[in-house]
Amino acid sequence: MSAIIAIDIGGTQLRVAVYPRNSTTPIKIQRVPSRGLEDGVFDRLTALIDSVWPDEPVDILCAAVPGPLNPYTGIIIETPNIPAWKNYPLAELLSKKYNVPAYIGNDANLAVLGEWLYGAGKGHHDIVYLTISTGIGGGVICGDKLIEGFRGMATELGHITVIPDGPVCSCGVHGHLEAVASGPAIAKYVCEQIAAGRESSLGCGPLTARQISEAAHQGDELAREAFVRAGEFIGQATADFLHMFNPSIVILGGGVSFSGALLLDPIKDSMRRHVMDKAYLDGLEFTTAKLGDDAGLLGSLAQAHIKLSEK
Amino acid sequence: MSAIIAIDIGGTQLRVAVYPRNSTTPIKIQRVPSRGLEDGVFDRLTALIDSVWPDEPVDILCAAVPGPLNPYTGIIIETPNIPAWKNYPLAELLSKKYNVPAYIGNDANLAVLGEWLYGAGKGHHDIVYLTISTGIGGGVICGDKLIEGFRGMATELGHITVIPDGPVCSCGVHGHLEAVASGPAIAKYVCEQIAAGRESSLGCGPLTARQISEAAHQGDELAREAFVRAGEFIGQATADFLHMFNPSIVILGGGVSFSGALLLDPIKDSMRRHVMDKAYLDGLEFTTAKLGDDAGLLGSLAQAHIKLSEK
Repeated sequence: MSAIIAIDIGGTQLRVAVYPRNSTTPIKIQRVPSRGLEDGVFDRLTALIDSVWPDEPVDILCAAVPGPLNPYTGIIIETPNIPAWKNYPLAELLSKKYNVPAYIGNDANLAVLGEWLYGAGKGHHDIVYLTISTGIGGGVICGDKLIEGFRGMATELGHITVIPDGPVCSCGVHGHLEAVASGPAIAKYVCEQIAAGRESSLGCGPLTARQISEAAHQGDELAREAFVRAGEFIGQATADFLHMFNPSIVILGGGVSFSGALLLDPIKDSMRRHVMDKAYLDGLEFTTAKLGDDAGLLGSLAQAHIKLSEK
Repeated sequence: MSAIIAIDIGGTQLRVAVYPRNSTTPIKIQRVPSRGLEDGVFDRLTALIDSVWPDEPVDILCAAVPGPLNPYTGIIIETPNIPAWKNYPLAELLSKKYNVPAYIGNDANLAVLGEWLYGAGKGHHDIVYLTISTGIGGGVICGDKLIEGFRGMATELGHITVIPDGPVCSCGVHGHLEAVASGPAIAKYVCEQIAAGRESSLGCGPLTARQISEAAHQGDELAREAFVRAGEFIGQATADFLHMFNPSIVILGGGVSFSGALLLDPIKDSMRRHVMDKAYLDGLEFTTAKLGDDAGLLGSLAQAHIKLSEK
């Protein structure tokens, strides 16, 4: 039985796992913190890969990488926390070192592949996956095919305009979904309202979506309102995604989605109000991601299986 | 040599053409006005098909139909000007009558297939086609595949939100692109401005985009401004489409696109300002549709060839 190596270049951890060709249960898994890896990060990654390298022949290596990259050339354009990886040909370097085909994919795009093959999207052919955490990302499957686009930069779902003259987004453009509904955007709203004199059990410091969620569950009205406001924008954008992609399932992932009904109910309510025709909601599932922390590794595994099946 | 029958259920004409299997030059073509066809329209259509039916064996019939429909079941949900065709199984009825496989497709979706195989999109693998006339529609090809979605209702590009609290769209939702940048929306803006006291060579009656375009070319400032305003919205939406689909070409079709630089320049200018990363513009073509009046027939022909190649 041959093996597959899956790599997850995460915001907090670098993880590598070996899977048997016919299973989603890893044979071995290793991780190191991804902070402090600015120097020599490729050597650290290969040391990690070496440490799990199996006796079985390895068919393929796949890596999930955050940030813009070209999945066709295997070049990372840039990725958070690893400044040295600018226009970095990671796939080629891995492939040469191990003499095995190697691929990289945008983490949100691989996450939707993972949810499709092993998670909440099983059996669906048309999936919109939206991940809400520090940023907002997405991946879309249409007719059993990942939407990648000319340079592999498609489905940047966080960068759809929701308020033309709204706050500046991380990308520099005004009014994108990410600028008003990501974790930091929710925290910023709470701080602004406190600064404007609103009462809250929360202080105006570095707040996480989790802290705001806990405050809301304990009855903090401002905290609750911050999620309703974010949900309103996410629902408006989700209606647009329905009109663009007509999925049979919308899957919400990312840390902010753990806030549960606090966020999901306003999203669903807003989506229903913004949809152009009820036919888009007919048979539509709306659910949260199932793979959680394993999204990166299982997404890479899913990508590996798809690449192997294409050969 | 076998033949293909292409049908175009247009707003002003019902057209049927016979193509040899290996050519885009029709052997025969027939048309009737599509108005006044409320009663007995299926009989009129089949009479038209009968009138062109060739001696050669017919491999397939394909029809381009405006309005929402299900391309998988071949059922028209509804279509303008033919109220009798509500939940109407046109593909099945045609297939039964002629004992030949028959398919229907949304006219904008078939138009992008036509532009891809025979028009402005030749050689591209990722195409966004936007048609601006009475309404705004669209079709998208991603990785050599038409994006259709779960029920075939994807890529309703006119129904993306551009101003959350903007004017009501034909679909009933506020602030969609169609509500602020279609031909009637451009005319409505001119009328509102004249009613508010603005000077213009135009009167405030039933205006067409062509009349406004002519006035603009003759120096009418309000007419020019109306196109700049529409272009600003279309450019903002187009940037969103780049982030969603990352095409290598954007093709503009529909009557309003004939206004030329008057509309295209403001669209391109706005698109460039709204794009999140210049990488989306790198290598991007921006052009007008090539098939013109033949979009429906050639789109149906393209669909026919794709269906035949899938068998």
